[in-house]
Amino acid sequence: MQSQVEKALSSIANQPIDLHCAGRTDTGVHAVGQIAHFETDVTRPGKAWVQGVNTQLPGDIRVRWAKPVDDEFHARFSAIARQYRYVIYNRDVHSAVLHNRVTWEPHYLDEKLMHQAAQSLIGENDFSAFRASACQASHANREVQSIDVSRKGDMVFIDIQANAFLHHMVRNITGSLISVGKKQQPVEWLADLLKARDRTQAAATAPASGLYFVNAIYPDELAIPQVQLNEMLWQ
Amino acid sequence: MQSQVEKALSSIANQPIDLHCAGRTDTGVHAVGQIAHFETDVTRPGKAWVQGVNTQLPGDIRVRWAKPVDDEFHARFSAIARQYRYVIYNRDVHSAVLHNRVTWEPHYLDEKLMHQAAQSLIGENDFSAFRASACQASHANREVQSIDVSRKGDMVFIDIQANAFLHHMVRNITGSLISVGKKQQPVEWLADLLKARDRTQAAATAPASGLYFVNAIYPDELAIPQVQLNEMLWQ
Repeated sequence: MQSQVEKALSSIANQPIDLHCAGRTDTGVHAVGQIAHFETDVTRPGKAWVQGVNTQLPGDIRVRWAKPVDDEFHARFSAIARQYRYVIYNRDVHSAVLHNRVTWEPHYLDEKLMHQAAQSLIGENDFSAFRASACQASHANREVQSIDVSRKGDMVFIDIQANAFLHHMVRNITGSLISVGKKQQPVEWLADLLKARDRTQAAATAPASGLYFVNAIYPDELAIPQVQLNEMLWQ
Repeated sequence: MQSQVEKALSSIANQPIDLHCAGRTDTGVHAVGQIAHFETDVTRPGKAWVQGVNTQLPGDIRVRWAKPVDDEFHARFSAIARQYRYVIYNRDVHSAVLHNRVTWEPHYLDEKLMHQAAQSLIGENDFSAFRASACQASHANREVQSIDVSRKGDMVFIDIQANAFLHHMVRNITGSLISVGKKQQPVEWLADLLKARDRTQAAATAPASGLYFVNAIYPDELAIPQVQLNEMLWQ
């Protein structure tokens, strides 16, 4: 994604552009509110950085808006929090229309138990239990500010906000919450896993297809637009 | 789609299976409630015709259910009506997530004018004005039973039910309704087009990407399940 946007921006700017993104998204993960910045000394009308760039991008990548920012702004380092959503299609047969947009789980999930279990993750904790072995962060301490599990019809949503995330952290948490939702594990399991700090005790990583990077959150005074967390995200 | 399902069914049945579908869907058109029947003399557990067949299908095709029907049942000829939905994403920038699932229209559409214009199509009429030149039907008379245009946020939905449809009929009606929604044409235009029976006067055919075959409707006593026409269809 990043390289395709860089290529499109470079074509509009007529000079090489390096992009800095607020959060990483692995292959197969979706982003509805990725924020990125770049430096350039060329001047283009605002439309060129949105509609112009979009004409150079494949249909599954779109620039929503662009605006000039102060020199001190950095998409990654100025962000004070990130929001992810994980979407599970919880029905006997998977959706053909959404087959690579959501994760399918045919066994009925008790989203109330999942929500209850998830609350034990709130606060500043060592999240080694939910950290990918490939994770290159210097330490595993992250502050989970909110985590909500809800259901709308056959869709189960896991909404999680933290100051920052470890590699695969949301997908690893989701895998273990699904075990609780299926009643394969008790509600207390998430607290136990967190305490044990041992990735091998937690459930398998949930698939990339259900994960959405929703928002990077910045101090209010920067006035960076956010995606509204409505039902389907993309409405 | 049809050939892929036939191949999957034939593999489960271990004999060649011919499928008969309720409605045609062109390339790029979606179907959430297609109904199809086939004849076979092999016996398989009900699960084999659903979960078994699904393991043989690509992710963008799914069998929802299967059940035995009377010899007289025919997916196409027993259907007394069909429902289609056309979905327009009405926002300045297209959705990356739904880019080939909905049609994008950046100019604001007045869905109330579109709804009003659409009402002139209700009843049994000659729909030559909205018929593709490739259409092979013996005549152009169809009975439109209902047509509703509504908005939910940035999504505009056109829901249309008729006894049967001509080739490209929904996409051609939609193209002309979009002209009314953009106020390029007055509300009365749809009635004028219908009366003129001349395809060349109507607007361009709307893209396939926004069109969903929602339901084939059968007499109640056949107890054929229907898709609920909720907001996003696929929830």
